[in-house]
Amino acid sequence: MASSPTLFVLLIFTVTGTAIVELTPNFFHQSLINHHKNSKPNIPYKTQFFPQLLDHFTFKPQSYKIFNQKYLINKKYWDHGSPIFVYTGNEGDIEWFAANTGFMLDIAPKFRALLVFIEHRFYGESLPFGKDSYKSAETLGYLNSQQALADFAVLIRSLKQNLSSEASPVVVFGGSYGGMLAAWFRLKYPHVAIGAVASSAPIVQFDEIIPWTSFYDAVSQDYKNASLNCYEVIKGSWAELQALSAQRDGLAKISRIFRTCKNLQSMYSARDWLWKAFVYTAMGNYPTEANFVMPLPAYPVTKMCEIIDGFPPKTTKLKRVIAAANLYYNYTGTTKCFNLENGTDAHGLQGWNWQACTEMVMPLSTSNESMFPPLSFEIEELGKFCMNRYGVMPRPHWITTEFGGYRIEKVLKKFGSNIIFSNGMQDPWSRGGVLKNISDSIVALVTEKGAHHVDFRFAKKDDPDWLVEQRRQEIGIIQRWIDDYYADF
Amino acid sequence: MASSPTLFVLLIFTVTGTAIVELTPNFFHQSLINHHKNSKPNIPYKTQFFPQLLDHFTFKPQSYKIFNQKYLINKKYWDHGSPIFVYTGNEGDIEWFAANTGFMLDIAPKFRALLVFIEHRFYGESLPFGKDSYKSAETLGYLNSQQALADFAVLIRSLKQNLSSEASPVVVFGGSYGGMLAAWFRLKYPHVAIGAVASSAPIVQFDEIIPWTSFYDAVSQDYKNASLNCYEVIKGSWAELQALSAQRDGLAKISRIFRTCKNLQSMYSARDWLWKAFVYTAMGNYPTEANFVMPLPAYPVTKMCEIIDGFPPKTTKLKRVIAAANLYYNYTGTTKCFNLENGTDAHGLQGWNWQACTEMVMPLSTSNESMFPPLSFEIEELGKFCMNRYGVMPRPHWITTEFGGYRIEKVLKKFGSNIIFSNGMQDPWSRGGVLKNISDSIVALVTEKGAHHVDFRFAKKDDPDWLVEQRRQEIGIIQRWIDDYYADF
Repeated sequence: MASSPTLFVLLIFTVTGTAIVELTPNFFHQSLINHHKNSKPNIPYKTQFFPQLLDHFTFKPQSYKIFNQKYLINKKYWDHGSPIFVYTGNEGDIEWFAANTGFMLDIAPKFRALLVFIEHRFYGESLPFGKDSYKSAETLGYLNSQQALADFAVLIRSLKQNLSSEASPVVVFGGSYGGMLAAWFRLKYPHVAIGAVASSAPIVQFDEIIPWTSFYDAVSQDYKNASLNCYEVIKGSWAELQALSAQRDGLAKISRIFRTCKNLQSMYSARDWLWKAFVYTAMGNYPTEANFVMPLPAYPVTKMCEIIDGFPPKTTKLKRVIAAANLYYNYTGTTKCFNLENGTDAHGLQGWNWQACTEMVMPLSTSNESMFPPLSFEIEELGKFCMNRYGVMPRPHWITTEFGGYRIEKVLKKFGSNIIFSNGMQDPWSRGGVLKNISDSIVALVTEKGAHHVDFRFAKKDDPDWLVEQRRQEIGIIQRWIDDYYADF
Repeated sequence: MASSPTLFVLLIFTVTGTAIVELTPNFFHQSLINHHKNSKPNIPYKTQFFPQLLDHFTFKPQSYKIFNQKYLINKKYWDHGSPIFVYTGNEGDIEWFAANTGFMLDIAPKFRALLVFIEHRFYGESLPFGKDSYKSAETLGYLNSQQALADFAVLIRSLKQNLSSEASPVVVFGGSYGGMLAAWFRLKYPHVAIGAVASSAPIVQFDEIIPWTSFYDAVSQDYKNASLNCYEVIKGSWAELQALSAQRDGLAKISRIFRTCKNLQSMYSARDWLWKAFVYTAMGNYPTEANFVMPLPAYPVTKMCEIIDGFPPKTTKLKRVIAAANLYYNYTGTTKCFNLENGTDAHGLQGWNWQACTEMVMPLSTSNESMFPPLSFEIEELGKFCMNRYGVMPRPHWITTEFGGYRIEKVLKKFGSNIIFSNGMQDPWSRGGVLKNISDSIVALVTEKGAHHVDFRFAKKDDPDWLVEQRRQEIGIIQRWIDDYYADF
């Protein structure tokens, strides 16, 4: 581990300068947070707050503390008694998930559905201890997926009571971590939700269920598919960066060619900056405005590789990959310089780092076939880091104990129902998802060209046929769940 | 409430002397605990301890505290890779559940099964804070069903790993509260247990799912079925007791005719003593030795009614019911006097009272048709009591939010599988159970004459045909689960 620097680096033990730990990458695109940190999207939802219980699973006096949990609601299309569509919020401001889940708004009129987006505890404004929420493990201790699921159950039950619409069927939706929550919610709370649409939900990216190398192998495969040369240039670029950093004034040189606003403290910042650009581009997870500039799912990896391949033959690999990364970080072409070494204190990332240090241990490493530098995953190193930072140890087997995952197709073949797992194979997180039908009603919708929960975005005129078809299937399946529900009633 | 004294009374606010609160009756027969408090049953299990985590659902430093959880194990019949049968322990020493669940030992050879009985946290020797475990809500806060289920999941996973037998199918068994846990375990942890046998598990005795009067109506119906006169004598006896207590030296007289060892402080002690005898007799939940004297399921209500009906016509009703209660409390005929006002500090009862004050709120009241005095259930009164006693409030809707229960037949019709709900209709808890098949594999085995989890007792030569048949069906269904599991493997 000491010799394998890493993505989404969190440098610790600066004395030795070697121990480097990778936390589970934050799904929620950081640049999306940063990009919009001073503005809120314009979305047709009313903001409400629900008095939520701090700890559902203990009964100590302090467990009864109440905090305000935010949720967004849209009743425009709803008829009393008709369905309720709930988005199970993930690691960030709920507004951004609402803005990026146009699918629910698009289909609401057809189903006469009430729309509700529930913010995840400890994100956005749903901070149980206000500005002290991230202070220490004493407060952060209540931030985890099981408590979040119980929040959703309690809130939905109360909401239905207040609406006097207890018989309304509830369908939960979620993308990425929110998709994991949606799928788990259907499994743990079938009495609350009749079905779940889990888009790009890597629920088997835990423990030793799938090879740890599959994520970065998938990213690499995306670039290889676009162009073998592109893949090889990227693969070779890390050595050039390394060599440059070994030169006299290496960091200054690197800072110059990366056009950083301030001189870099570490070459790893530059490396991670590139690394992230390749990963997020493969996920197709561009900042919202970029989607208008380069409409998704027009596949931006191809675009990056066109840039890399388009240079004259003698151009250095490093220069090419920096140009490609510029497509990601500077799609408007107006950025004068780049901040590579800050912007990591967004609330979303703080909360996610905590989750990655406790329950959300999703081991990722690189294989020789990957285009990335060597990266290993070692639980001992993660443990040291988390103990040092938060005073608690990760529980790497907890998620699979609580939610399962091993032999999932056999476990759920005759247990559970009404879950859609949608995945796009361009998205590296798809490798940790459910990619095959498990039963008649636990189904996988897999698209070859899809990106990270692209099906959840607003429909657009120029959407490709496969995306239109995927959404059509989702609507048909949801319709069946609802029809079955009313028929049983 | 103030005017409706109650069963399993816990008198509070002795200043007013009126506020009386009923907690959910403890399933685990108290006299069974008391009877055996100085001895342990002789059972063929080895005792082990597992280092268990204090709090599975928060990640505070103190959540990581480890305590020793007791479990019993028997490997005599087990072949490596063959099934593991786990009893999900309930509110008491695990030895007593092992001693009273001979069914698992009886069928182990046929299945080559490993037998494991896991003690529930905060009962028996599985005390997370040692002798301070019941000190206050600060420690008791960790005693609840969700934490117990997670304990089972963690322990089973570890056990299978240690045995290098990860592929062994696990079937969970439980009776009464343990049966609720078994059913919920299958629903929440389908990746850990392939099926659950839940005997006499009143999982719908919560909130407003079933009428609150059904429990005592069922007890009354048992006595009415035995003899209408018996029912009427019992129904009329309370007024005689009341009248006696209103007399000069009433309590002394009551003490005399009840043959108490010490003069009573309250007539309610006498009333509750009778009340309990009728309820536990209806449940068929006699102390173990009594089963040998009056072998279950020979229906002891009939016996009680024979005594009540057998007196000369002019005998007072009170005298008759006391004689009947003697059958229950003094089946050996050797007891010289009775302690009606102590013996409530057994660990099992302490723990259960806490659970009844927090999550296990199972409202019971009496109807006009019942043979018992008026008893109402008021959540406000319970709240006052629990706040006064523990400093926390009950969460009366939590169990149905977490585990469901409303419209269970519709919710589970297309969700979940492999659960047996067995119930005997003589047992009043059956009314809170699942009494109809929900799907092909979530089935109800209901016997007209069965008592409280009588199917789980050791098979005996003189067991009636219906009991033999019920167990035969259970064995057949378990066999099918296991066959299906291996076929899928």
